[in-house]
Amino acid sequence: MTTDKAGARYDVVGIGNAIVDVLSHEDDDFLTRHAMTKGTMALIDADAADRLYDDMGAGIECSGGSAANTIAGLASLGGRGAFIGKVRDDQLGKVFHHDIKALGVHFPTDAAADGASTARCLIHVTPDAERTMNTYLGACVELGPTDVDEDVVRASAVTYLEGYLWDKDNAKAAFVKAAELAHDAGREVSLSLSDPFCVDRHRDSFRDLVENHVDILFANEDEILSLYQVETFDEALQHVRGHCKIAALTRSAKGSVVVGGDEIHIVDAEPDVQVADTTGAGDAYAAGFLYGYTRPQEGGQAVDLTHCARLGGICAASIIAHFGARPETPLNEVVAQKLG
Amino acid sequence: MTTDKAGARYDVVGIGNAIVDVLSHEDDDFLTRHAMTKGTMALIDADAADRLYDDMGAGIECSGGSAANTIAGLASLGGRGAFIGKVRDDQLGKVFHHDIKALGVHFPTDAAADGASTARCLIHVTPDAERTMNTYLGACVELGPTDVDEDVVRASAVTYLEGYLWDKDNAKAAFVKAAELAHDAGREVSLSLSDPFCVDRHRDSFRDLVENHVDILFANEDEILSLYQVETFDEALQHVRGHCKIAALTRSAKGSVVVGGDEIHIVDAEPDVQVADTTGAGDAYAAGFLYGYTRPQEGGQAVDLTHCARLGGICAASIIAHFGARPETPLNEVVAQKLG
Repeated sequence: MTTDKAGARYDVVGIGNAIVDVLSHEDDDFLTRHAMTKGTMALIDADAADRLYDDMGAGIECSGGSAANTIAGLASLGGRGAFIGKVRDDQLGKVFHHDIKALGVHFPTDAAADGASTARCLIHVTPDAERTMNTYLGACVELGPTDVDEDVVRASAVTYLEGYLWDKDNAKAAFVKAAELAHDAGREVSLSLSDPFCVDRHRDSFRDLVENHVDILFANEDEILSLYQVETFDEALQHVRGHCKIAALTRSAKGSVVVGGDEIHIVDAEPDVQVADTTGAGDAYAAGFLYGYTRPQEGGQAVDLTHCARLGGICAASIIAHFGARPETPLNEVVAQKLG
Repeated sequence: MTTDKAGARYDVVGIGNAIVDVLSHEDDDFLTRHAMTKGTMALIDADAADRLYDDMGAGIECSGGSAANTIAGLASLGGRGAFIGKVRDDQLGKVFHHDIKALGVHFPTDAAADGASTARCLIHVTPDAERTMNTYLGACVELGPTDVDEDVVRASAVTYLEGYLWDKDNAKAAFVKAAELAHDAGREVSLSLSDPFCVDRHRDSFRDLVENHVDILFANEDEILSLYQVETFDEALQHVRGHCKIAALTRSAKGSVVVGGDEIHIVDAEPDVQVADTTGAGDAYAAGFLYGYTRPQEGGQAVDLTHCARLGGICAASIIAHFGARPETPLNEVVAQKLG
């Protein structure tokens, strides 16, 4: 399997919600008291965000956002990344902007000069290291087709989209525009399903996307089961075969399964991982996978999908070993240590 | 040795700079390029802070400030804390306010409605786990005597002051007012020397303070050597004896030495600590020490200074094992695990 990287200025451009994470440790009672479903993401409005923030414990803030985390991870591996997403010109917006630029990521989107504040995701990490998220989208809802930098999309080997964009019409239009631009330029389109509830909200259009527009699909087990409304992983696997060029399906401690045409690879998870916080595991997996996928192949060799999955697994293992969704140790060093 | 805790509503009120930390990993070349002295804190203005932020790596944000960290640690141990310090009513000010309130700390100081933004401390952690800090004081310079809540100071067994306050006249006046109020109410006054360069800037007045106004002094080895302009720890030790009621002198991996009247205790550091980031070690030591110091003693027994030092060491060891200056695991749980 080969991919057209000829003349690509960026390996991957991510389009997604530009969010600052606020992480706190909470117990299970906290989730119960706030009627949260563990391990999922819910959208909340500004008032609900204020109320929840008042009730949660002391936090740490770091840049987040699903696709943004993936691009940050790609850059940390040494890949060439770009990101399109909307912040407000406030303090948290400056934090987001600084953090992604500091990793060498091209970030062409203008900050909003008025309107809602920069998005925040309140993340509660329970003693089992699971994360439960509540997102106030804030300025992200301003993201629209005009924010899609056409040159950047055309110049990127892969355009990577997060499913969460599908929650707002404006962002959805940006999503569709970017996918069309990428394909017209002979590039590839990748989608992360983001969250089983997100899949539930948009099942029919996600199925249409996967079958007709997505080259590389990322999904975890819950998400792919939800997409096809089936009970077992194997059923989902049979459905997704042939629906898109490549599907990388993550299964937490069971590792990942990669489907590409007739190929199927089962790649075990990294051993001996001390899990501190699962936030960003899927984003980091996509970073490693896409980094491997977009490396130039010597002499026109096919991409080694097993290697891509292994890189994804190494990056995910590194991210979940600490508190927070962005790399603490540069991922190129982590990979060099693992693969020598 | 006994202390008057009768009728105290708070164990400790801290007065200090209200700061949000921005931590990044950097290499030693970064420090050289910016002419920084490793392990110290420098004050910078808003422009310099912006330039430095532009050049530093991706960060994580968490509430900081020396005395504020100590009060946060005290609260995490189960102590009753209050904090006086100035933020602006901006996003980072709300973060600071939220984090200290979330720990159950009483925080009576009004946020400034205009003027400079909430203070930030840019902290660069090098591969040896040392931290080098550059602080933009921002709204902290607005802190003055009128911000000293007289009822809170009178109602606190110990008023804890950070040496950094001595850098601004307004804050210094607040410092002196608080110390006088505390003593007039029959309470005790504690001072942390903060930083050897801070001691250097204010040596004469710090010596006067220590000899005439401070009951409980906290200093690390560099600071106490700087205070007395001596070469060896033992010389400093002989100087400080008799200058204040209690001196708790921290020596990093060598543990701490506590002097109280005729008593001298040498307490080893906790063994087997994996140091990730030394930020907040001294603040956490003071938290543990003061928590022990302010516990009610059964039947009028004297305070066990060795126990106070041990608590300080346990808290410091917990803080330096992770990235950031505030507790990640509740300190009461850490102590319970260590002491059973």
